[in-house]
Amino acid sequence: MSDFDLNLYTAERVQIIHDGLDRFTPSADTPPVPLHTAMRYSLMAGGKRIRPLLCMAAAEAVGGDAVQVLPMACALEMLHTFSLIHDDLPAMDNDDFRRGIPTSHKQFGEAMAILAGDALHTLAFATIARHQRTENPEQIIRAMAIFADASGSTGMCGGQVDDMYYEGKPVTPEILRHIHAQKTGALLNASLLTGAILCNATAEQEECLQKYGSHVGVAFQIVDDILDVTGDDAKIGKPTGSDEKNDKATYPKLFGLEVSARMAREATDSALDALSVFDHHAEPLRAFARFIVERDL
Amino acid sequence: MSDFDLNLYTAERVQIIHDGLDRFTPSADTPPVPLHTAMRYSLMAGGKRIRPLLCMAAAEAVGGDAVQVLPMACALEMLHTFSLIHDDLPAMDNDDFRRGIPTSHKQFGEAMAILAGDALHTLAFATIARHQRTENPEQIIRAMAIFADASGSTGMCGGQVDDMYYEGKPVTPEILRHIHAQKTGALLNASLLTGAILCNATAEQEECLQKYGSHVGVAFQIVDDILDVTGDDAKIGKPTGSDEKNDKATYPKLFGLEVSARMAREATDSALDALSVFDHHAEPLRAFARFIVERDL
Repeated sequence: MSDFDLNLYTAERVQIIHDGLDRFTPSADTPPVPLHTAMRYSLMAGGKRIRPLLCMAAAEAVGGDAVQVLPMACALEMLHTFSLIHDDLPAMDNDDFRRGIPTSHKQFGEAMAILAGDALHTLAFATIARHQRTENPEQIIRAMAIFADASGSTGMCGGQVDDMYYEGKPVTPEILRHIHAQKTGALLNASLLTGAILCNATAEQEECLQKYGSHVGVAFQIVDDILDVTGDDAKIGKPTGSDEKNDKATYPKLFGLEVSARMAREATDSALDALSVFDHHAEPLRAFARFIVERDL
Repeated sequence: MSDFDLNLYTAERVQIIHDGLDRFTPSADTPPVPLHTAMRYSLMAGGKRIRPLLCMAAAEAVGGDAVQVLPMACALEMLHTFSLIHDDLPAMDNDDFRRGIPTSHKQFGEAMAILAGDALHTLAFATIARHQRTENPEQIIRAMAIFADASGSTGMCGGQVDDMYYEGKPVTPEILRHIHAQKTGALLNASLLTGAILCNATAEQEECLQKYGSHVGVAFQIVDDILDVTGDDAKIGKPTGSDEKNDKATYPKLFGLEVSARMAREATDSALDALSVFDHHAEPLRAFARFIVERDL
């Protein structure tokens, strides 16, 4: 075990990410004030900033500069926040709390929540196009394509469609994995890949990061499902039991709590194996993988 | 007057655009089938394809190849369609018909309409990143930034916020112009600028196209407002009188029908003036400007 301090590392990085999000997002004083207020309400509400952290850690892992990819990292958080706002809408999951505060539509009404999501969706792409720099602009275009696909009809949006479609229906482990691969996995993978691509990753490094991302994505989702059953509302920032309420397919429902926890640990081990080609610069990625299963299992 | 045949030109181009949209959009046979079906339902329903036509015409005007900018042209139509789907939602304008058929939420339900809009929004950026090519990739990134800004909080989304905010409230001509500049003007301008930038436009050419775009945008909006009062439902593809129903600020309400029609003609003349630096390659842009005020005034 290394003496790498994930808490310290994360605290420093989250501050940098917070400052970046603040800088790349229009001020709430500038018109249209209600829209910018709603955008900032959800975006600056905290959250674990996992996607930008992974993006910056992947940049480091391939020997790059984490701060250089800050615009891309912030774009990932904007895209994630947009998807949360829309997923919470009454027509979708109809959730009232998120990140410890009322959801966007509860706070600002449905129309403004839809528009705040849309504007954050666009802002993500604008942030990359306006602020991301590399030696080779082709890398930005390639990263943008991966980023866009993660969000689209075969990524997050597609995952949400399947998620709603299977509510109350029996699902196989394959379907569950497919839903999560789209809904969460695609953007986690894009976080790692874009950070690496913008820092001149080799094809082998990209491939290893994709493997790491897939395993970490599975581990992350299983732990999320478990915490929805066993966790503490205040700590998680949203009501637990929401999957049960919405009759969603989850790992604990399909495999039981104990087997689910074991599967999460196995996925973490596989994620760590995938990092064997990297040197000490990948220490943050290793620590993230361990942290996921240790947070409350 | 030239003997340029706008009808023939448009018919040919609309076919190319239609084929491009079909090619860049996932097939309705591929999963998630319900989402791809909903995306195609709105995207392939026709419409005038004004934004892609303007993009391709701007490429030509600066001496470029119209077909080279087809991915960008199709992305503009995807972005426009996304905005229509979301603007039609019950929480927004609550419209039942669009392009002659039931709106997306009427056909597929609200959740699917939100997601189909989101997925088309993303697909627009993915289409540019995956398919647009130029000699200089910096041009693609610059075009993408302009494209994103046109859609965001100070573009279409912002315009929709202001539009809803001023429903039933008195507006000045300045506010009305500002709403339209965001809601319609920004994307029309982006259509022209992106097409030109991708074909090596000079700074002077860009500036003239922006002037043209602003004037054409105003003319277009005035005519749209007039047609909502005087037009024929079947011809327009959506119920007329919708602005009145929603108590929206419009040119006819503020200035009367006659003065509005004169303002549209003046804006068209200014648009034509802005094209004086261009040679015969700008003939399609000139014909568009004339067509707007001639369609039913």
